[in-house]
Amino acid sequence: MYIILVYDIKLDKEGQKVLRKTFNICKRYLSHIQNSVFEGELSKSQLMSLKWEIGEIIREDKDSVILFESRSDRWLDKEMLGIKEDKTSNFL
Amino acid sequence: MYIILVYDIKLDKEGQKVLRKTFNICKRYLSHIQNSVFEGELSKSQLMSLKWEIGEIIREDKDSVILFESRSDRWLDKEMLGIKEDKTSNFL
Repeated sequence: MYIILVYDIKLDKEGQKVLRKTFNICKRYLSHIQNSVFEGELSKSQLMSLKWEIGEIIREDKDSVILFESRSDRWLDKEMLGIKEDKTSNFL
Repeated sequence: MYIILVYDIKLDKEGQKVLRKTFNICKRYLSHIQNSVFEGELSKSQLMSLKWEIGEIIREDKDSVILFESRSDRWLDKEMLGIKEDKTSNFL
């Protein structure tokens, strides 16, 4: 499955730690393409463990993670305006 | 076509103005679902004019906008962890 993941972490007192952990988890599964955006191909079991790990970190009432799941990237076209691909990718 | 749009605007001196304009343009075409994430169904001509308007605002060397285009939302599943749908949607 092709996955696009976007997160919005509330930067309150513990927010920085949650953000760093969330970023590091996502980097282990997906490619970092923009500030809080990741994409990549995952098996169902990888997707399940990614969701489980994220669920252990984020705060239900403060943080938001959205996953778009497509059966294949064949049905998804990607277009980038402005800066292409996030060269830095060492966001933190 | 089903569109997912994500932007990352560099918040330097004119960044706030670019961010506000980008947000307002996106809101006219798509639904705001998270901090810098929009989604919705657009015709090809609507998509072209959205891209044109955004191209007029963002700075090629500083800002990044990614558009994922899927022929239909039937091939896309969306899952939200943490805070559901951005109720506020008056981000600015």
